[in-house]
Amino acid sequence: MKIQKPYLLFLGDAQDPLAAKVAQGINQWHPEYCVGQYRMESCVADCGLTEMDIEQAKAAGVKTLVIGVANRGGIISDKWIAILTEALKAGFDLAAGLHNKLNDIPELKELADSLGRNLFDVRFPTQTFPVATGLKRSGKRLLQVGTDCSVGKMYTALALEKEMLAQGMNVSFRATGQTGILISGSGVSIDAVVADFIAGAVETITPENDADHWDVIEGQGSLFHASFSGVTAGLIHGSQADALILCHEPTREHMRGLPTYSLPDLQTCMDLNLTFARTVNPNVKFVGISVNTSNLSETEAKEYLDGVEAQFALPAVDPFREGVSRIVTELKKI
Amino acid sequence: MKIQKPYLLFLGDAQDPLAAKVAQGINQWHPEYCVGQYRMESCVADCGLTEMDIEQAKAAGVKTLVIGVANRGGIISDKWIAILTEALKAGFDLAAGLHNKLNDIPELKELADSLGRNLFDVRFPTQTFPVATGLKRSGKRLLQVGTDCSVGKMYTALALEKEMLAQGMNVSFRATGQTGILISGSGVSIDAVVADFIAGAVETITPENDADHWDVIEGQGSLFHASFSGVTAGLIHGSQADALILCHEPTREHMRGLPTYSLPDLQTCMDLNLTFARTVNPNVKFVGISVNTSNLSETEAKEYLDGVEAQFALPAVDPFREGVSRIVTELKKI
Repeated sequence: MKIQKPYLLFLGDAQDPLAAKVAQGINQWHPEYCVGQYRMESCVADCGLTEMDIEQAKAAGVKTLVIGVANRGGIISDKWIAILTEALKAGFDLAAGLHNKLNDIPELKELADSLGRNLFDVRFPTQTFPVATGLKRSGKRLLQVGTDCSVGKMYTALALEKEMLAQGMNVSFRATGQTGILISGSGVSIDAVVADFIAGAVETITPENDADHWDVIEGQGSLFHASFSGVTAGLIHGSQADALILCHEPTREHMRGLPTYSLPDLQTCMDLNLTFARTVNPNVKFVGISVNTSNLSETEAKEYLDGVEAQFALPAVDPFREGVSRIVTELKKI
Repeated sequence: MKIQKPYLLFLGDAQDPLAAKVAQGINQWHPEYCVGQYRMESCVADCGLTEMDIEQAKAAGVKTLVIGVANRGGIISDKWIAILTEALKAGFDLAAGLHNKLNDIPELKELADSLGRNLFDVRFPTQTFPVATGLKRSGKRLLQVGTDCSVGKMYTALALEKEMLAQGMNVSFRATGQTGILISGSGVSIDAVVADFIAGAVETITPENDADHWDVIEGQGSLFHASFSGVTAGLIHGSQADALILCHEPTREHMRGLPTYSLPDLQTCMDLNLTFARTVNPNVKFVGISVNTSNLSETEAKEYLDGVEAQFALPAVDPFREGVSRIVTELKKI
């Protein structure tokens, strides 16, 4: 799945600024991919990009219209079809990460086929993947693991890619979820791959590379999550990580979606992830801890991070508050 | 997936007795499901059942023709189609666990649809599954875990079901792979489920039950297998096992399919599986060790099993040589 750039970000009829968070993510991490935004009349979200209709976007060189909004239910809205049709006729591909598929809407599918355009449903892998070989690959790899789902793994990975690029390192972000794919333009929604091929899919998107190249692989789920641990296990073995970063949200009262499950403590979580990751790379180590402290005050956050840093003798940062440069310093020792 | 019994076992044109091992497995574990066998002219495999053509099988009350043979490549052979067609016309369903699907052969699919017959491709789940909830379910559950793939998990599970039934216990074998499904008549090929739903599928096939009921869940893969650990991880969390059995093959030189990977030692393997399983059931424990000693002499096997039994203070048996009654004794303490 390789989405052509640049993008027109489609914000639709978003009734809530948060509904356009995918568009905001793309624009935050890759403003250079985004030439403009398309907002329907009632739209209240705003990425602050130049407003464009399809014709203007075409003149500006857009290759793909990206649906960067989720309405209630996360499905492609009937109200959007006329605009999506116009975009296809203008020569754009379409990309979406919603629960239903562009490819399942006959009007769009037939038009795209007849015009030779692509419809990217990034939540649904179209490629088939081999069974993982576990063979050692050249190049270096970093993976985020977490105490839970939705604790900042993607954010941490994107922050690392940005910082490593800024420091002149040879690095690629490897997306494993739909938002990451739309932000970076490629990757695989690993949770939608058939169970036998999870690790194989990860091997496929992180192939052999230059000795100094880093794959920064987007983590998913948690080995401690009773619903999704299979995804995480396959991701860890397929990644063959040299470096792990632990991601955590310290105010979470229970595992996401599982009210009867507490989060593991950090030490327990690191131990299990290390044991697991060592099967495929005995030299793997943790290089940092990334904490989402958005629910803590500045003082509380500092206190929490200082405590974690002292306990584990590893840089503990909130990437949003202070960036990840201290983790990159640690990474350069590998 | 619920396959109607009794079965006519189709041995096709098997050129090698081993090619019919699925049929032999069904007949070994559930002779009461099998009323006869159908062998084509050149067939060299033999389950020792009454030879029947389709008409005779119909008269004998057969409900399903089960393809119990794998030719080279594991696909449905063109040479079988005429017989499969005849079986559908006689009112039988068809069941197969091969790499291609009965449902993808237009001749069979159209005929089955027009006659209201079912085509069971047991390797490919047709149901959609929910995300696992991790909620505690009533009833008790046992799962085999292994140092590697193909070390006797299914055999151990079937032997346990048989022994537990013989001792009057309330028990169900829960198949998680295609051979187990054909042997028992229901289940889900867990390695073919989409990654997000592995644990959810296992929860679905092992629902709440009587307090004294045991689900004996067929294990798959290994947490130490770089290709398939995701399947195993989801299976462990979905199972919410009260009891684990470690399965091992002591002469294996490397992980199956992974020449560069050694097997874990038994203690390491038990530790990681326990840690993993405790997330969903803190009281889980190992109740036995099941060793496939087919590559050892009687003396070597005894010596090996005695050593393991002494080291772990758990019954260590080869289910083929001595059965699993000593493990069932241990199980009754839970």
